[in-house]
Amino acid sequence: MKRNIKIKGIGTYLPKRLIKAEEIDQLLSTKSGWSKRKSGVKERYFVRDETASYMGAEAAKKAVQDAGLTLTDIDCLISGSGTIEQAIPCNAALLQEQLGLQYSGIPAFDINSTCLSFVTALDMISYAIVCGRYKNVLIISSEISSIGLNWDQDESSILFGDGAVAVVLSKSTDGSGIICSHMETYSAGAHLSEIRGGGTKIHPREYNEQTKDDFLFDMDGRAIFKLSFKLLPRFIETLFSTTNLTMEDIDMVIPHQASASAMKIIRKKLGVEESRFMNIIENYGNMIAASIPMALFEAIQQGRVKRGDKVLLLGTSAGLSIGGIVLEY
Amino acid sequence: MKRNIKIKGIGTYLPKRLIKAEEIDQLLSTKSGWSKRKSGVKERYFVRDETASYMGAEAAKKAVQDAGLTLTDIDCLISGSGTIEQAIPCNAALLQEQLGLQYSGIPAFDINSTCLSFVTALDMISYAIVCGRYKNVLIISSEISSIGLNWDQDESSILFGDGAVAVVLSKSTDGSGIICSHMETYSAGAHLSEIRGGGTKIHPREYNEQTKDDFLFDMDGRAIFKLSFKLLPRFIETLFSTTNLTMEDIDMVIPHQASASAMKIIRKKLGVEESRFMNIIENYGNMIAASIPMALFEAIQQGRVKRGDKVLLLGTSAGLSIGGIVLEY
Repeated sequence: MKRNIKIKGIGTYLPKRLIKAEEIDQLLSTKSGWSKRKSGVKERYFVRDETASYMGAEAAKKAVQDAGLTLTDIDCLISGSGTIEQAIPCNAALLQEQLGLQYSGIPAFDINSTCLSFVTALDMISYAIVCGRYKNVLIISSEISSIGLNWDQDESSILFGDGAVAVVLSKSTDGSGIICSHMETYSAGAHLSEIRGGGTKIHPREYNEQTKDDFLFDMDGRAIFKLSFKLLPRFIETLFSTTNLTMEDIDMVIPHQASASAMKIIRKKLGVEESRFMNIIENYGNMIAASIPMALFEAIQQGRVKRGDKVLLLGTSAGLSIGGIVLEY
Repeated sequence: MKRNIKIKGIGTYLPKRLIKAEEIDQLLSTKSGWSKRKSGVKERYFVRDETASYMGAEAAKKAVQDAGLTLTDIDCLISGSGTIEQAIPCNAALLQEQLGLQYSGIPAFDINSTCLSFVTALDMISYAIVCGRYKNVLIISSEISSIGLNWDQDESSILFGDGAVAVVLSKSTDGSGIICSHMETYSAGAHLSEIRGGGTKIHPREYNEQTKDDFLFDMDGRAIFKLSFKLLPRFIETLFSTTNLTMEDIDMVIPHQASASAMKIIRKKLGVEESRFMNIIENYGNMIAASIPMALFEAIQQGRVKRGDKVLLLGTSAGLSIGGIVLEY
């Protein structure tokens, strides 16, 4: 049954430092052009002095304005990010503080499924909205990947960018809604992309020259792709199974911007032409959970997604998880 | 409107090391009896070699058995913990792996509102269950606080314990359900209890003799209590406002085991006698998000909560948040 919710507004924040592929080449002491050719990322943004909560709050203010609302209309605030700003408290509390809502009482909590955090937050909170619990929910995905990159690991370090996207979700009365959604997790891939340290297993006090890589992002892209690619066809089948939809009915696929090469193969596997497949990795890199809403934002800005369009949000994440939502925008 | 869900099963895991108050006194070089007198905690458990995912999986197996189900009946797995095992991926993926469900596809994600994570997870996922999305959801709260304690800060280090609790949540047909629930966050208190480091703001690479306290738990208990105490009466009023209930109708209050002294004052403020107020802090300490489900487990085990009873889960968390659920058990 369709869940009558609507992305009423959307806003973004891009960090101050624009990093061109040439700069990455220099950082890695490789030939100019190498990182662009390998990753497909021409430029991305890295934070200078911004915190994740600062970026998220800036994006949120724009989303609220875009929705034609004010911050006082918001009655729930969710962080849908794969990274944390500090160990305690949760991101959402820090975002609320940054928004100047310290005394508002607006409930604030985090939903985390790494790169799928935005999708999972949207999926889960939609039930609370249709049941009448919350009226206007802010979901904020604000990611700083640059601090955790391992510059000795080319494969991942050439790929990621920072930034924030926020949406306001409300009940809809005009047909907008979630038509179907689905998520699967295969922890057989739990260690294919990870940061092993920083939690209770390897505490920061254990940081030293020998352990330092445990505190940086570590990814086996080929293995992730192999597992995802194998799981994808049946996942799509299951996602659509409660509907009469096929991929032909989807006006725009908004994929996680995992990597340029993976996206190319996935698009072909889905049987979707380039015009129906948002690819923004060239200008943003992989922004963890902010990637999917950033691609949605770009699609809306460019007029490639309009109200009433059927949009497929689709991605994989560390875990390894696959998630998808068919949204009538 | 009542949400027809039911805690079908519950299970716990207690770490291998039982730590008596005398041991804490020695650690802090204080007189024997001091930490017990100050905190009200006689004993608590600390992990020896256990990971959070190991503890959580052990608790989950017992919860599933208690529900009369098998792991293959579970169709969603949520980590409701305030601590993380590693930075990436989320706890829930690691729990799924530890449960041997690597190839199951069971969707796994985290909900985090620090000490209220269990309550928020229960509250939010209940909507998805009543809407038919998931049938049998595992919520696992597994916490290792001991690794993050600052032994130079008596106030918090004498208070905390480790451990895990899991529940199986299903749709109910027998009257069990959530009668009402409510949450409020006041980030004016965001820095009253925190671990500043470990995320993107202060990366573990910045760990050194000068910064080390940033990676340990830091709490101003008096300020937290003051703020919580001020907010409590109106919170309870709002929580009950959609019902005809008063505190007199509650068979058992299951509070977060924040601290012995705070609980005593809160109990009196609520106007609830000792027999209707679960206090287990003496034997477990404050187990972060595992505290409330552990107190519920004890109440069930001791025959103090029976099917059909009205139970109030109530707590505060870093953030600062207040959350409550009235559950017909």
